[in-house]
Amino acid sequence: MDLPKHNHEGKTSRRTFMQQSAMAGAGLALASPLQLFAQSAQDPQKSRNIKTRGYAAKDESGKLRPWEFERRPVGDDDILIDIKYASICHSDIHQMKGHWGQQQYPQVPGHEIVGVVAAIGKNVTKFKVGDRAGVGCMVDSCMECESCTHGEEHFCDRGETVFTYGYPMKSEPTGISQGGYSDKIVVRDHFAVHIPGHISFEEAAPLLCAGITTYSPLMNAQFKVGDQVGVAGIGGLGHMAVKLAVSKGAEVYAFTTSPDKVEDIKSWGAKEVIIVDEAFNNMQSYSKKLDYMICTIPYQFNAAPYISCVKPFGTFTYVGMPEGFELSYNNLALASSRVNLNASLIGGIPETQEVIHYCADNGIRPQIQVIKATEINSAWEKVVNKQARYRYVIDAATF
Amino acid sequence: MDLPKHNHEGKTSRRTFMQQSAMAGAGLALASPLQLFAQSAQDPQKSRNIKTRGYAAKDESGKLRPWEFERRPVGDDDILIDIKYASICHSDIHQMKGHWGQQQYPQVPGHEIVGVVAAIGKNVTKFKVGDRAGVGCMVDSCMECESCTHGEEHFCDRGETVFTYGYPMKSEPTGISQGGYSDKIVVRDHFAVHIPGHISFEEAAPLLCAGITTYSPLMNAQFKVGDQVGVAGIGGLGHMAVKLAVSKGAEVYAFTTSPDKVEDIKSWGAKEVIIVDEAFNNMQSYSKKLDYMICTIPYQFNAAPYISCVKPFGTFTYVGMPEGFELSYNNLALASSRVNLNASLIGGIPETQEVIHYCADNGIRPQIQVIKATEINSAWEKVVNKQARYRYVIDAATF
Repeated sequence: MDLPKHNHEGKTSRRTFMQQSAMAGAGLALASPLQLFAQSAQDPQKSRNIKTRGYAAKDESGKLRPWEFERRPVGDDDILIDIKYASICHSDIHQMKGHWGQQQYPQVPGHEIVGVVAAIGKNVTKFKVGDRAGVGCMVDSCMECESCTHGEEHFCDRGETVFTYGYPMKSEPTGISQGGYSDKIVVRDHFAVHIPGHISFEEAAPLLCAGITTYSPLMNAQFKVGDQVGVAGIGGLGHMAVKLAVSKGAEVYAFTTSPDKVEDIKSWGAKEVIIVDEAFNNMQSYSKKLDYMICTIPYQFNAAPYISCVKPFGTFTYVGMPEGFELSYNNLALASSRVNLNASLIGGIPETQEVIHYCADNGIRPQIQVIKATEINSAWEKVVNKQARYRYVIDAATF
Repeated sequence: MDLPKHNHEGKTSRRTFMQQSAMAGAGLALASPLQLFAQSAQDPQKSRNIKTRGYAAKDESGKLRPWEFERRPVGDDDILIDIKYASICHSDIHQMKGHWGQQQYPQVPGHEIVGVVAAIGKNVTKFKVGDRAGVGCMVDSCMECESCTHGEEHFCDRGETVFTYGYPMKSEPTGISQGGYSDKIVVRDHFAVHIPGHISFEEAAPLLCAGITTYSPLMNAQFKVGDQVGVAGIGGLGHMAVKLAVSKGAEVYAFTTSPDKVEDIKSWGAKEVIIVDEAFNNMQSYSKKLDYMICTIPYQFNAAPYISCVKPFGTFTYVGMPEGFELSYNNLALASSRVNLNASLIGGIPETQEVIHYCADNGIRPQIQVIKATEINSAWEKVVNKQARYRYVIDAATF
């Protein structure tokens, strides 16, 4: 049963590609009865579920296994992306292991997704078939509220933001959103961004989460050229934060527990690298030195020594999300520091598009290691053990 | 042995008073050999310990008992204050019960202290005998560092801030600073403030902690007239925060768990009083409403519903200090709120003087209940049980 359907979809996909290509300059002709007919009634991608191959967690063990599943048909506002690469974020591991709450399984993680548009719904004008596209941490929202209409879809006022995997989604055959460790994804056009031609797919992928999650708070911090900016935790997010802050003119101080990262970090332009020891002795001379600090450490830790490195009335932004999202801190230490503490969650779609253009245009690239799907489980172990250098990117051809 | 010494001191105290009164206009004569002799060699207050009666904790039970102890002699930079009133702060209870760490006992709490200057050291020009004076949460610091020389003695860069009770202090006969639940205190002149004549002693006392601890962050918040300011927890600190914010032109929203406080709070000018229920249902309509919020709740609690009442990019200041100083929060909720979180610790000496003048001049008075020393233990229970309305002030004549 599967095979004929799959072949049929393949044929239709090529036919759709030709139709869409022909329509590219057609303007109003798009709305003609013939086109509407061609886009919906005759196109199985728009009436049937999309067979997808991916890697899914089946339970909280944190082990992923190959899984074939179905995605919803391409709706009027959707695009279908043939995924080329998907990269690994520590959040994937947290969520699949149930650290952030009970999950529905099987669940496919992955929210750093890039590929080629293979089909578009009849209302879609943002993309055409063949475009390079990316999907980050969210795939839908109400699109009508104040936040959604002002580029803050991740803070939908109605609470209808749908994150890329594991969120209830009636339109999906599995009942939840399913992520990017897979060969295809159907997504509402608004929630995909363009990937310009002058950045490779594999280097663009990590920008969809690690890039935007650090770019957004760094821009919000409004630091000035020459300001002293700290980055705590130099993994997937932290290494992007170093590169972005350097490119924006900051004097960057990187705090890491991994001595073997020092040379890499300096090569990205950091002014100093501080090896954080268990007693935090190496941090003492940085007391009240920084104008701003971004912290990407994705587990519970003693934040006080880090916060104390920020000048009074400066800001410390926490973008890591630990187990249960719970962080504790010493209120007396916070009071003594006079530092403002905040947290930041990814970024809206316009700003996600912005960081991709910014990195593409300014030669800012994540440091990546391309792996096959069969290597995902060992890569996850390395991420947890701080052995990633600095982002694993899965070749979607291997799913 | 005690009695003759006590009598002798009593006589000397009167003699000193006459000497100092006579010296008030003497200017340079102060430095004459005769005066120096009179101030040190001949004055037992400046050479002998000061006998003091007070109420002390003897252990972590939280029960206070009468205690006679000695304070250091009046040093060259010190003043001796005959205490008139000392008021009760929740911090007294926390510290005596060991909630903030192990304590040395006996220990006399109290850091809202007012009285009359009874003697001054030879270098003192800030006060003269007979002046009305107050002492708040700290009694010494290095006085040389950047923070100390800029009115931020509570953040002494050398870490030499001495808080008013329970802090190691070699000069004190008991080895630690001893607080204001007593009839006398010796304090370095810089750490006492003037109490103007147009505010009563008993109403001035609570300003030394509850007043400055709320005034300082409210001023730092730089809200504008008409801004919507929330106050969470309407006890000793919270009720001052309401009155101060109202007087500065804010539209004040008070959050309390005590329905019987509503009328009081409205009488102070609050725009609305929100009765916080266990499920936080009453708070939901205040989501993202406030420009700023100050929280005075002195125990661990779920801060997320309060933080969510602040507008994105607004600030939430936490001035309560819970057991162990530890607060935990949900980082995802904080990220979603986009609120800046900070904490505030009392205020410096110049700002403490400022809040006293501000309240005296603008008719801002704490709502107090004057009690006798024998009522301290029951008053403490009422503070813990949220039954204080709103500050207990101990009449020091009853020690």
